[in-house]
Amino acid sequence: MQIDIQSRDVFYVSDGTAITCETLGHVVIGQFPLNAHEKTFPFVESEDKLDDLLREIEQSYQRTGRKPLVFFSIVIPRIKHRLLQAPAHSYDVLADIVEQVKGDIEMEPQPKLQRSRSVGKDSASYFDRIAAIEYTLAHDDGITLKGLDEADIILLGVSRSGKTPTSLYMAMQFGLRVVNYPFIDEDIRRLRLLPEFEIHRHKLFGLTIDPQRLNEIRENRLAGSDYASTEQCISELKSVESLFRREAIPYINTSSLSVEEISTRILEKAGLRRRLL
Amino acid sequence: MQIDIQSRDVFYVSDGTAITCETLGHVVIGQFPLNAHEKTFPFVESEDKLDDLLREIEQSYQRTGRKPLVFFSIVIPRIKHRLLQAPAHSYDVLADIVEQVKGDIEMEPQPKLQRSRSVGKDSASYFDRIAAIEYTLAHDDGITLKGLDEADIILLGVSRSGKTPTSLYMAMQFGLRVVNYPFIDEDIRRLRLLPEFEIHRHKLFGLTIDPQRLNEIRENRLAGSDYASTEQCISELKSVESLFRREAIPYINTSSLSVEEISTRILEKAGLRRRLL
Repeated sequence: MQIDIQSRDVFYVSDGTAITCETLGHVVIGQFPLNAHEKTFPFVESEDKLDDLLREIEQSYQRTGRKPLVFFSIVIPRIKHRLLQAPAHSYDVLADIVEQVKGDIEMEPQPKLQRSRSVGKDSASYFDRIAAIEYTLAHDDGITLKGLDEADIILLGVSRSGKTPTSLYMAMQFGLRVVNYPFIDEDIRRLRLLPEFEIHRHKLFGLTIDPQRLNEIRENRLAGSDYASTEQCISELKSVESLFRREAIPYINTSSLSVEEISTRILEKAGLRRRLL
Repeated sequence: MQIDIQSRDVFYVSDGTAITCETLGHVVIGQFPLNAHEKTFPFVESEDKLDDLLREIEQSYQRTGRKPLVFFSIVIPRIKHRLLQAPAHSYDVLADIVEQVKGDIEMEPQPKLQRSRSVGKDSASYFDRIAAIEYTLAHDDGITLKGLDEADIILLGVSRSGKTPTSLYMAMQFGLRVVNYPFIDEDIRRLRLLPEFEIHRHKLFGLTIDPQRLNEIRENRLAGSDYASTEQCISELKSVESLFRREAIPYINTSSLSVEEISTRILEKAGLRRRLL
């Protein structure tokens, strides 16, 4: 059976960053068999910018014969009113839920321009976030193993198992201080854990990956090398996984997970609390 | 007039990462005068995990005398059904909008476990994202000015104006290759633009910041130093801003903006398109 995939323009519109509209809208359209052409319009806070947007909506409708989908969050009443006149299917991503909460907790909402998540307007959380990013950058890829006392978590894994993106994501989004350390030949051959990690054993967390996936990623980096060969990948992963098991280090397989999923799963499995929301 | 701030537990619950619930719920509760205690429950995909959550909801209600707010997105029917029995005000963050879209475009939704934004399940966008992060790390803080041909954007600014977090965010979330270069004394004194940047002039973008804010950030790093002094901050910023103007380099003031806002505004002002959504 063939499923028809319909082409459709999708616009995310906000008088703020539009991160909320994008996040929600992207998940919503992911549930329909659409070939979506997505475009974001942040900071639509003036009539001029609104005019540009309305022109694009009009053109999309003319060109495709289908109304575009518009996921929006707009506080300014006149802008919202004019947007709703456009030839589009428009969805206010917040209004219904705000209305329900209002009824449930019996409080009046105070609509304000959207602030994004993890904003850290207040200085304390701004500095926490920056400090976490700096700590994590300084401890990327085993650059240094000094200052492990301050680490929230220490990620271990073979080269290309996803340590660096995961570390940076956890620092940026969760405000955590992350060390990541790539096992080198010597570690792998001797199946050893560096003595530096001994007293931080409770912070250790392993990443592993399927050999085929690792091979694919390494080939993308260094095609045809021994480093990328299937044999090398299998051998490294086998050693490292037995090390994780022997030392009772919790670990996850990153093969089919996004950076967001890896980070969230580690947070959960390690029982860590984020320092930012 | 004093506004009473009410304390309230808020839970974000999903059978996926819960990023959508967090993002939306956080903005919704930001509109009410609440002192929210937020907690996230990702990957609630088994009865066991649900039991833990239900216990916490029950305890919250007993302890505070108020029902917690639960922002959820759950595909598994039995889990959803049981969650809805709990003593909480529960909001399905997707259901109403999916229902509206369904009616508007006359297609049946195919609910699936939540995938987060920028997932890059397919290899092409996975590699794009990783490549962007690596490029950006390699070009952080003026480490090297080789390979500028591949840059999507080049951020310029004085030390501590927000270049590194912004660069990493743009790489991680937008898939862009970002160079950032800190003006050094020599550049500032001579009001010069490095010759390496000449042929990439269209990629240049400046960051500036208020002197008081810069002073505060630098004091946090190196208290009492000349580097952090108000005079030094004023002098550097004055020079750099006149350089931006003289060379017609677009720039923004980062003082009161989050990393998300800075990144989104740059994207917009520079007319760049993200490589990931």
